[in-house]
Amino acid sequence: MWSYQHPTEIVFGQGELKNIGNYLERYNVQNALLIATNSIVKSGVANNLVANSNGKIAEVISGIEPNPTVENVEMCAKKAMELNVDYIIAIGGGSVIDCAKAVCAVVAENCTVFDLLEGKEITQALPLIAIPTVSGASSEVSGATVISWKEKQLKIARASQYLFPKLALIDPTLTYSCPKQVTAISGIDIIAHSLDSLGSIGSNPLTEHFATEAARLAFNNLLLAVEGNAEEKQQAKNELAYAAVLAGLAFSQTGTTSSHACSYILTAKYNIPHAEACAFTLDEWFLYNVSHKPLLDKHAERIGFENARHLVESLQQLKRKLGFRTTLSEINVTINDLDEIAESAYSAGNMKNNIAPVTKEAIKQIFLLKE
Amino acid sequence: MWSYQHPTEIVFGQGELKNIGNYLERYNVQNALLIATNSIVKSGVANNLVANSNGKIAEVISGIEPNPTVENVEMCAKKAMELNVDYIIAIGGGSVIDCAKAVCAVVAENCTVFDLLEGKEITQALPLIAIPTVSGASSEVSGATVISWKEKQLKIARASQYLFPKLALIDPTLTYSCPKQVTAISGIDIIAHSLDSLGSIGSNPLTEHFATEAARLAFNNLLLAVEGNAEEKQQAKNELAYAAVLAGLAFSQTGTTSSHACSYILTAKYNIPHAEACAFTLDEWFLYNVSHKPLLDKHAERIGFENARHLVESLQQLKRKLGFRTTLSEINVTINDLDEIAESAYSAGNMKNNIAPVTKEAIKQIFLLKE
Repeated sequence: MWSYQHPTEIVFGQGELKNIGNYLERYNVQNALLIATNSIVKSGVANNLVANSNGKIAEVISGIEPNPTVENVEMCAKKAMELNVDYIIAIGGGSVIDCAKAVCAVVAENCTVFDLLEGKEITQALPLIAIPTVSGASSEVSGATVISWKEKQLKIARASQYLFPKLALIDPTLTYSCPKQVTAISGIDIIAHSLDSLGSIGSNPLTEHFATEAARLAFNNLLLAVEGNAEEKQQAKNELAYAAVLAGLAFSQTGTTSSHACSYILTAKYNIPHAEACAFTLDEWFLYNVSHKPLLDKHAERIGFENARHLVESLQQLKRKLGFRTTLSEINVTINDLDEIAESAYSAGNMKNNIAPVTKEAIKQIFLLKE
Repeated sequence: MWSYQHPTEIVFGQGELKNIGNYLERYNVQNALLIATNSIVKSGVANNLVANSNGKIAEVISGIEPNPTVENVEMCAKKAMELNVDYIIAIGGGSVIDCAKAVCAVVAENCTVFDLLEGKEITQALPLIAIPTVSGASSEVSGATVISWKEKQLKIARASQYLFPKLALIDPTLTYSCPKQVTAISGIDIIAHSLDSLGSIGSNPLTEHFATEAARLAFNNLLLAVEGNAEEKQQAKNELAYAAVLAGLAFSQTGTTSSHACSYILTAKYNIPHAEACAFTLDEWFLYNVSHKPLLDKHAERIGFENARHLVESLQQLKRKLGFRTTLSEINVTINDLDEIAESAYSAGNMKNNIAPVTKEAIKQIFLLKE
């Protein structure tokens, strides 16, 4: 038995952001808070949005950190309550949209961000319009948010049907000015989400249909988006924006799995950016899982490779071409660190989603392949 | 610019119907009317549903005609109002589910079925759980209903976001007892919906991703579902049930187009069953459209053929193998009838969805290819 539900309206179009006024009208937005990534404020795009909103955007707030914090959520929620807003609009990368989702829940539930992070049931949330400026995290089409609770050195994920944005407004032109390294790291996140979804116990024919196409597009376009000429870059970035939607349609249902479970401590303790940290073990987990789920060879074919082994070799080449670190020494991990890393990965909730059974020893062996 | 939204929860599983009680609980159903196709009442499945509903199904009603009528809707709506139900459950083919959708709108709007057919705006509808027993119409995952107004010799379609079922509960085992001819005709409907959707002006990358996979699965499984051995039949029927979901995810967004526009008069005046009537010109429209949308050659590749021409040849063979009529003389249409047929097809609303411009003369030429 499998099930699928995705309530978000997806609007996709180059230059579509200029029609924001129509969407605010259609969704009957009266008084919104705009949470914007800093660069969107600096570039004047946030002001343009306000100008095109027919007075429906009450205020712009920014300053959200790359891994959004408890304090970021508190600051925005306080502002939203002061203004008594009926909608949140988020424009930015996954961090800004994740922050906005937490704000939506905290304001509607009239609770603290700590209540949320400590597991309070989410029964309602302010409606959200999400506008991504980077292709990768897919937060615009997922019902999950990850918030950093620095005091406790924790990143806490919450997911709920109420956290799916009402509208994901995807205008790929917003990603054109994205710097190379951000494009590369975010783009590899699309592949990580897709392959993790394919290796999840929650995977089903429909999520597999999304995930294989997302991965195919990301493999075909990521290098071009980083290193192509101007025209190639734009075309490739259009495709990545769509690939991110597809990846979100997959992993918003299945959850992520092993590569994500292994990434948390690499980010927290070794300062490896999230998607690079996921990519570090992603290849090995795909091979680890294929023996348990031979269908992964078929999925690899649909992605454009002969089989899982060839996909993994291509992924390894891609990581090197993009300049990612691929060995333990490059990320400053020693063999002595592996027990702690395995312990952390094993205890991550999403490791239990992995289609093949996982032991701490198996996690260590995966890391040892990177020696 | 394109957009996509599909609110229905899809649950798919062999034998899942036995868990109906859990779903009624989850959706907080208190007092439902079950609209059931006659065979489901005869076979005892309707009574089993009532028995498994923990008293949540107040009554069973049946007797819905193959093309559901104004009178069918009136009868069910009257019963729903008498019982003051909060949910409608429909189990049957597209006709029963279409009838149920109209009932949901009429009861919630507190209007007559004539108001609905004459275009009253739909602003609400009773929630619906749809359980298909045939794979083809995809009404379980669409927001459209077609009702026959016999007095006026009209079939009227209404579509609304409020008409999407809350839950589509797809248990492929319900289709195992479907007779050969019904399986064949319904199955060709999946291909008609998919190819019409690919040839629609509303087609987008996401609907094309659904439609090509739906068509691929239908091409690969339809003959097996009709003529295979017992095991092959069941496996093929599982795949067709999934293909119907995918086709619905596509055409619920794009609408149908030329083959459907041509079918109405063939059904109304020449008594050709709906899907056989669509299939009659489906092949020629796909070729007609490929010159305007060369991408259809690529779509044909994803469906499993070298190009559009090869797809069309296979479709023509498939129609003959399934025993469908493929010439004008077989359906008792003469060349003198073609002006009236072209007039009817040209004036059908969905003909305007066709990706390549269509004239009455072009429609005549399409039919002349079947001489």
